[in-house]
Amino acid sequence: MPANTFGEIFRLTTFGESHGPSIGGIIDGMPAGIEIDMSFIQGQLDRRKPGQSDITSPRKESDTVEILSGVFEGRSTGTPIGFIIKNKDQQSGDYDHLKDVYRPGHADFTYEAKYGTRDHRGSGRASARETACRVVGGAFAQLLLRKVNVQVTGYVSAVHEIQIPKNVALNKSLIEQSIVRCPDPSTSEKMIALIHQMKEEGDSVGGVVTCICENVPAGWGEPVFDKLNAKLAQAMLSINAVKGFEVGDGFGATRKQGSEHNDAILDGQYTNHDGGIQGGISNGRPILFNVGFKPVSTISKPQQTLNKSGEEITLEAKGRHDPCVVPRAVPIVEAMASLVLADAMLLQQSKKI
Amino acid sequence: MPANTFGEIFRLTTFGESHGPSIGGIIDGMPAGIEIDMSFIQGQLDRRKPGQSDITSPRKESDTVEILSGVFEGRSTGTPIGFIIKNKDQQSGDYDHLKDVYRPGHADFTYEAKYGTRDHRGSGRASARETACRVVGGAFAQLLLRKVNVQVTGYVSAVHEIQIPKNVALNKSLIEQSIVRCPDPSTSEKMIALIHQMKEEGDSVGGVVTCICENVPAGWGEPVFDKLNAKLAQAMLSINAVKGFEVGDGFGATRKQGSEHNDAILDGQYTNHDGGIQGGISNGRPILFNVGFKPVSTISKPQQTLNKSGEEITLEAKGRHDPCVVPRAVPIVEAMASLVLADAMLLQQSKKI
Amino acid sequence: MPANTFGEIFRLTTFGESHGPSIGGIIDGMPAGIEIDMSFIQGQLDRRKPGQSDITSPRKESDTVEILSGVFEGRSTGTPIGFIIKNKDQQSGDYDHLKDVYRPGHADFTYEAKYGTRDHRGSGRASARETACRVVGGAFAQLLLRKVNVQVTGYVSAVHEIQIPKNVALNKSLIEQSIVRCPDPSTSEKMIALIHQMKEEGDSVGGVVTCICENVPAGWGEPVFDKLNAKLAQAMLSINAVKGFEVGDGFGATRKQGSEHNDAILDGQYTNHDGGIQGGISNGRPILFNVGFKPVSTISKPQQTLNKSGEEITLEAKGRHDPCVVPRAVPIVEAMASLVLADAMLLQQSKKI
Amino acid sequence: MPANTFGEIFRLTTFGESHGPSIGGIIDGMPAGIEIDMSFIQGQLDRRKPGQSDITSPRKESDTVEILSGVFEGRSTGTPIGFIIKNKDQQSGDYDHLKDVYRPGHADFTYEAKYGTRDHRGSGRASARETACRVVGGAFAQLLLRKVNVQVTGYVSAVHEIQIPKNVALNKSLIEQSIVRCPDPSTSEKMIALIHQMKEEGDSVGGVVTCICENVPAGWGEPVFDKLNAKLAQAMLSINAVKGFEVGDGFGATRKQGSEHNDAILDGQYTNHDGGIQGGISNGRPILFNVGFKPVSTISKPQQTLNKSGEEITLEAKGRHDPCVVPRAVPIVEAMASLVLADAMLLQQSKKI
Repeated sequence: MPANTFGEIFRLTTFGESHGPSIGGIIDGMPAGIEIDMSFIQGQLDRRKPGQSDITSPRKESDTVEILSGVFEGRSTGTPIGFIIKNKDQQSGDYDHLKDVYRPGHADFTYEAKYGTRDHRGSGRASARETACRVVGGAFAQLLLRKVNVQVTGYVSAVHEIQIPKNVALNKSLIEQSIVRCPDPSTSEKMIALIHQMKEEGDSVGGVVTCICENVPAGWGEPVFDKLNAKLAQAMLSINAVKGFEVGDGFGATRKQGSEHNDAILDGQYTNHDGGIQGGISNGRPILFNVGFKPVSTISKPQQTLNKSGEEITLEAKGRHDPCVVPRAVPIVEAMASLVLADAMLLQQSKKI
Repeated sequence: MPANTFGEIFRLTTFGESHGPSIGGIIDGMPAGIEIDMSFIQGQLDRRKPGQSDITSPRKESDTVEILSGVFEGRSTGTPIGFIIKNKDQQSGDYDHLKDVYRPGHADFTYEAKYGTRDHRGSGRASARETACRVVGGAFAQLLLRKVNVQVTGYVSAVHEIQIPKNVALNKSLIEQSIVRCPDPSTSEKMIALIHQMKEEGDSVGGVVTCICENVPAGWGEPVFDKLNAKLAQAMLSINAVKGFEVGDGFGATRKQGSEHNDAILDGQYTNHDGGIQGGISNGRPILFNVGFKPVSTISKPQQTLNKSGEEITLEAKGRHDPCVVPRAVPIVEAMASLVLADAMLLQQSKKI
Repeated sequence: MPANTFGEIFRLTTFGESHGPSIGGIIDGMPAGIEIDMSFIQGQLDRRKPGQSDITSPRKESDTVEILSGVFEGRSTGTPIGFIIKNKDQQSGDYDHLKDVYRPGHADFTYEAKYGTRDHRGSGRASARETACRVVGGAFAQLLLRKVNVQVTGYVSAVHEIQIPKNVALNKSLIEQSIVRCPDPSTSEKMIALIHQMKEEGDSVGGVVTCICENVPAGWGEPVFDKLNAKLAQAMLSINAVKGFEVGDGFGATRKQGSEHNDAILDGQYTNHDGGIQGGISNGRPILFNVGFKPVSTISKPQQTLNKSGEEITLEAKGRHDPCVVPRAVPIVEAMASLVLADAMLLQQSKKI
Repeated sequence: MPANTFGEIFRLTTFGESHGPSIGGIIDGMPAGIEIDMSFIQGQLDRRKPGQSDITSPRKESDTVEILSGVFEGRSTGTPIGFIIKNKDQQSGDYDHLKDVYRPGHADFTYEAKYGTRDHRGSGRASARETACRVVGGAFAQLLLRKVNVQVTGYVSAVHEIQIPKNVALNKSLIEQSIVRCPDPSTSEKMIALIHQMKEEGDSVGGVVTCICENVPAGWGEPVFDKLNAKLAQAMLSINAVKGFEVGDGFGATRKQGSEHNDAILDGQYTNHDGGIQGGISNGRPILFNVGFKPVSTISKPQQTLNKSGEEITLEAKGRHDPCVVPRAVPIVEAMASLVLADAMLLQQSKKI
């Protein structure tokens, strides 16, 4: 029901359109007494914001978060945390030509089918700008998860056909050194080159974000409908442009036999084909999953489409956009994973009598 | 929170362990006045039940559903529909040797980590037997969806490396003629042969179920956190042994450019790379998704694992099991998809002022 | 949404009509490892069942609860607890004459307005028989609350104009010695005499149940919309025939000045005008509230009403009924209060980092 | 769970403390296309704001609402409506002396018991200032309810012992002509005189708000746990200082016999002892209920209480406060009732196949 609400005990509700005065949200369920590190929260937003490098959209947004409640003398009080992020660099005029057009791959037509109306400026509520609020919520979740030492780390593992080779070990310290957020320098270079090419061609390209959640204790997640993997799947598919989710070996597991896939439960050493979750519950090993993003729908190349009158027209997009969404998607994936884990943590805590 | 509840307006809550007296559930939110076709509901259960062919578990269960409330003179009354399915062929003794053992790939260890205890007989609540209740709930959802002509159809598109070739068109009438529920006869034969081989070897194998939802009107699904694809992802990942979900071109989309992936919105003809959902809302085209299942964890081959005392032991499973879960998973995938769609239908209906 | 579900973390969902094969429910969220005292649970049902004394309905129901899941070797497992209570003494024929009649004070007309249909036998889902499932759920909640020594005690404080005098101290041991569940023997006698008179006259009479919850620690309950008193109010008004709820001094407080009503916070001694809850959160003092029940709508005296064709007719009820509902309502009030408190307990536990 | 969220399909979430930069909220589920009458919304806030007459708190707040999203070209878009109300006349210094004191009748002690901390300035989240956001949410709900002509009207029916005489018919046009919002001029005068006296004495006094909801169609409200009266009860008890709720004859019904209380269902004329709701579902007659408020806890008279060190001290409050809360509570009661009804309206709409 709560289409704009995510989570049960640790809960984020968001509002806001791309071209309104501001976007924002409410974080409900943050336990009291947690130190609120504002520079960490703003830092997460900075990793998502447009204009951070020459492979992202040039829209200029400082994306400064203002906390309106729920924090007192530097700590959470247990009451809801309201926040807003003001929209600044709105060039709403850019979108006038889209008022009566359904852009291919976008939600223009579906919003109108659903609501009978839409705010056409900058995709309105369907804009990926909405995800900034998720990053704020996720940052608060991470402040909570830090208390039990859980670490959530995302990175770009593929852009189009360019993938990190299988034998490359993850070096987390290299992620933020790459503007595409790929921790393997040589793969990173190839990805950046491809994205530059796309930008020049006025086209876009898809990719994969991989996420690893470390130090999650065994026992988090609810079996049956709210399996930890199921909530992660919902969380990830709720991000704009995501078309696929897999945990552990994922679709690779469909091509395996039980005798090679079954994770041994052995002291000292183990395999992790299941990606840290069994029966919907964490088993103490790292939680591993992949999130597949389609190429950004907004491209500058001319495309055929329909307008509201049902006439076929040629569309040439003018708005600012990213040629590849995955570099900026990394903090969004981390945020959504953190929201899922914080909720699971608090729920599990409720059960220990 | 409601770990054993799925859906908001159309809502299924289930209970039951593999080796208790019965499993069952409550369907809440079924509108009044819908004709209840009991033979359809039982027929869906029959498609899921064990022992239906020589490639499924030999456990003998009639899986007869008994409706306890909410239906009067052949029609739904709008009140909750309680139902039970009695467990019959329980061979609990088969599981005595597992009391103190954590089986690889299973939820034995995680349930115990979560709850401090578990019913070890037949995997208890973690048993796939629980999914029979989903099939009942989904069948009621389908009775509702029929009213608007929505059709949900699943089939097996891959077993291990064996896939339906790309150029084969879907012939829905062939699905149920194949015991593996693959509509391409020559692929079906190969799949069945491989499953027989696994059975002989005491091993198991994974696979993929593909699902198509036809005639879903444009406008279903909630944007942002409850996108239609996000709820489908949660629904699918909540099924035992599922490790991946993708909608439309899915992970294939990550290797595409926007100019080739963007679905044209044109009269008469269209592409459907997005799989019928844009911005989280249905666009009127068929909804298409894939669900990846890992190989069944229970195998007869000897495996190394730990017991509760932390000693390494060799496990040779004795319980009855399926060498490949996908043939029986088809009605489960359909059921979960139907639950998602019925909920979306009722919610969308609430909004039209 | 979940009209047949109550609670968030500790959650009861029920089903069943008065004249179906059985009623039942699912308790979700019971922590694992709690000893399940079946005789206590059945004992609570016995306090609610009809035919327990000559002032209650003569319908004969053993009201035997059968647990179908979630309990293993005498303890809760953390998985959902399914249960049923079979209907036995159904005299559905008694209700044939009511098929086309809207009984005054009943839900016949409103169910039909809502659903376009109704199961007219014994009030269907609107029957107070539904509350038996609440008593089961509440009994499980009490088993949980016992762990922290919380005690929930209800009793009849008024029947019609007959009230326990203000100066009589509560002696809990006398409650169950009175068939009307009034702990003051002389008041109890007068109540019983009045109820006998009503029975003879074919009429009915209202009354008040008072409830005291002891040893609730300070800090339970959520401020703002889910205040502990607000959830108790919903819980109580959800019981059939309840028309009023007040906590602490209740409506009496509306006729007071702040200087006399404000509870002193002093060591050793205190007043409790607020009834143990301030700002929606328990303060450690006993929680006190009153629940007002209207007279049972079913009476044998002839009444004028309408039938479905809109004709005015004279109705003479034949079904079996209680001349006064409050004696049997005591365990129902206790059950609903226990469900609210168990949920509050688990939620508060989730917050302690 | 969602302690700061109210409603299922039509849903309000709020945040904000009395002395932060602003309070605000998010309205989710407003159907698209509804004309948003900003002057109506601001007008409802004006009825609640302090300083509106000499019998209310002198805190000066313009209480100007700013809409941040969800409204486009004067109409709702179906997306969440974010709003804020800036706090202006904060005199936080007034509260320094309360930092270590638990005020009698207040939530100071309980918040600290729950959260281990509290924002002591102006009662923080426990301040009635929070209800301004409810008024905004309720005003949007009323804009929706107008579409089906539902009218929600509250008024003050009692202050301390002063009640509107039974034989006085309700003249709705007189309500807003009285600063105490009592539609009977002679009773209104007496109430105002008493409140002035309380103000002089530094004391406070309780009272009753009565509410009537007209033109609610038959069939709204869910039976069993979410009965329309049960949701109204939760809604009302969730308002600060409310201690009692009764629907129809309420506690008066406990002193009646069935033969006098049962509402006749007759053409043309009817009684309405049940207050428009039967079996939890509206019956088409006016919905009538009373809400009892305790005297405001903040008084200027010296009171004995404890500080954090457990020492007994004498407290003399300095903050600004209302000697009687009911005049300003009228729009809050209306708002909460409207939220309940809007939710019931949308939910009922979802069920008509």
